[in-house]
Amino acid sequence: MGRDFAGTPHQWPGQVTERSLADGRPVVYFDDESTDGPVHEVPDLRPLTTPPHAGEIRYDVLTGEWVTIAGHRMNRTFLPSAADCPLDPTTDPARPTEVPDNRYDVVAFANRFPSFAPLTVAQPPDLPRPPFGPVDRPAYGHSDVVVFSSDHDAAVADLPAARMRTIVEAWVHRTAAHSADPGVAEVFVFENSGKEIGVTLSHPHGQVYAYPAIPPRSAQLLERARRHRAATGGNLLADVLAAEQAEGTRVVLRGEHFTAYVPRAARWPVEVHLAPHRDVPDLAALEDAERAELGAVYQELLRRVNRFHPGVERVPYISGWHQAPTVEDRELGRLHLQLFSLLRAPGKLKYLAGSESGMGAWINDTTPERIAYRLREVAS
Amino acid sequence: MGRDFAGTPHQWPGQVTERSLADGRPVVYFDDESTDGPVHEVPDLRPLTTPPHAGEIRYDVLTGEWVTIAGHRMNRTFLPSAADCPLDPTTDPARPTEVPDNRYDVVAFANRFPSFAPLTVAQPPDLPRPPFGPVDRPAYGHSDVVVFSSDHDAAVADLPAARMRTIVEAWVHRTAAHSADPGVAEVFVFENSGKEIGVTLSHPHGQVYAYPAIPPRSAQLLERARRHRAATGGNLLADVLAAEQAEGTRVVLRGEHFTAYVPRAARWPVEVHLAPHRDVPDLAALEDAERAELGAVYQELLRRVNRFHPGVERVPYISGWHQAPTVEDRELGRLHLQLFSLLRAPGKLKYLAGSESGMGAWINDTTPERIAYRLREVAS
Repeated sequence: MGRDFAGTPHQWPGQVTERSLADGRPVVYFDDESTDGPVHEVPDLRPLTTPPHAGEIRYDVLTGEWVTIAGHRMNRTFLPSAADCPLDPTTDPARPTEVPDNRYDVVAFANRFPSFAPLTVAQPPDLPRPPFGPVDRPAYGHSDVVVFSSDHDAAVADLPAARMRTIVEAWVHRTAAHSADPGVAEVFVFENSGKEIGVTLSHPHGQVYAYPAIPPRSAQLLERARRHRAATGGNLLADVLAAEQAEGTRVVLRGEHFTAYVPRAARWPVEVHLAPHRDVPDLAALEDAERAELGAVYQELLRRVNRFHPGVERVPYISGWHQAPTVEDRELGRLHLQLFSLLRAPGKLKYLAGSESGMGAWINDTTPERIAYRLREVAS
Repeated sequence: MGRDFAGTPHQWPGQVTERSLADGRPVVYFDDESTDGPVHEVPDLRPLTTPPHAGEIRYDVLTGEWVTIAGHRMNRTFLPSAADCPLDPTTDPARPTEVPDNRYDVVAFANRFPSFAPLTVAQPPDLPRPPFGPVDRPAYGHSDVVVFSSDHDAAVADLPAARMRTIVEAWVHRTAAHSADPGVAEVFVFENSGKEIGVTLSHPHGQVYAYPAIPPRSAQLLERARRHRAATGGNLLADVLAAEQAEGTRVVLRGEHFTAYVPRAARWPVEVHLAPHRDVPDLAALEDAERAELGAVYQELLRRVNRFHPGVERVPYISGWHQAPTVEDRELGRLHLQLFSLLRAPGKLKYLAGSESGMGAWINDTTPERIAYRLREVAS
């Protein structure tokens, strides 16, 4: 609270280098510092010929939501040994990884087992079109892996501030790149951390999904925001932030450019939202000073989540950046981070059982006020 | 396919006995056979004085959904040793369980750690009302535990047909009882099975939630059904069933009164829906012949789900009965079962990570057609 999170330089001193993998997938290197001359020229020599494809999206007529059917993902890499990590740099040409160069700071590349991809397979010809509701569509889009460090065992919260600044820049870059694709409706930047929540690779990394249709939670949010605007003239997310700042009970930290708070109807045993003070649609619209503070605040929130349960060494978490849609209803959206953990006590996960999975009816076994109290208590 | 599931007697030969626990919570015994004279008269002698309370429901202004805040559930019983199981019969007066009698077939009682309860706590007085959106409401309702057998280690799929018939009758009874409460909007009968999905008690049991507001998935369904009725005049769920029966690709089994099929946009690695042939709003509206077949079909589906993954001894599952709302929009609903598993391969669970948990955007790593093929292949 009141702490200064603006310790890192505002202007990012790094550089971006765009290359391709053997099968044509893009790979983008983000270096902490700029250098003269070409970098990351090591080619990908693997015999990969066919770029990976995605499946299709099908409309669920009972909920009005699109579901991605991605049968090809069933055999993706699952918790490989550290020696076989596909996110490590390629230090031994006999064991090439997904990153051709033998050193990198942050690197993003298109997933080899994508949920969404530019190249998609057609619907199986023997499957009749649905009797009602929209027809199936290709799962067009993009699925990036963003690797945060070449150190297999690093934790995001402990990375140097300069590296965190580079990660923010990678998020910004991928958001802007995918937003420029007219086939993309919304870009979601997220991170799953911890094997308890099914992370298949332990190397520190995040992901970016560029969806071909507005995802369900965003569709709900835009509908609520539309009604709120019609009723009050205000932006729903901005008004929620102002209300939380005014009330204060659930505020976790206040920076110069960002405020973190526990939402009034939190669903998870640990959950916190982070919102910019300025009306900003997405990460790409953040100014330098905001990007710098964001990295510091994000790491502080990760540290607090990690200290939430006494006696737990590493708390699993999911973090996701909710951004405005790329085209339609863009004015109704507003950037915010949702950071949460399924861990409700040491050794006890919150599972989504019948009520949550079957009915979408959430039961939280704690109170948002208690979560906020604890997240303030464990400040650095 | 085409098998006769009508082996059990149509008329249920059992009986229902309603009693109370020491703290006033209802306990209802369902016996497989009727007997003359009073039964289950053993009183609950535990020094429980205060009936358990529920918390509150809060409106999530970002999604338009109610979230239950139940801080008192944090310390509920978690995987007790078999010797301390609260669902066993009370065979030793020195170790009383939640069931006072020393024998029972099926028994239902109000949960001691309820998500919804008739007695609720008021909102903490220091918490201001939300700046916009509906105010918090008590988590009024009912949370039943339904114990399927006095045998701690039994599996529902293996219970005798006569016992399964009694379980159906218990579902019917609790649905009817809670539907008569004007404070209840919808009754959800469900079962979580398997420690992989966080079941806190391994003794075979299901649950019933009587919600004070239409739960989110039902609200979505009712909205889709309303639009479908306006556009076509038909009932959405009946038309989905007819379409699946006509196409056949995803049909898993056909009985005289019920058909099971994998939904066209299945979200889970194993998922099957079961729908009655007759337009029926809820379990209580089923006729005797339907109730008898339902028990047999349900057990057959559980056996098939359990055989889905070769080499897995017991497949965890969630099953939920979606029923019509008790009052409003009742004509838009239609009874159907959703049965699914999170197990995508031996040792691999489908976790709800960033895209599902943060965005509600589901990725299924298999196809609905493949699921249906396998569920037909493993028929008894």
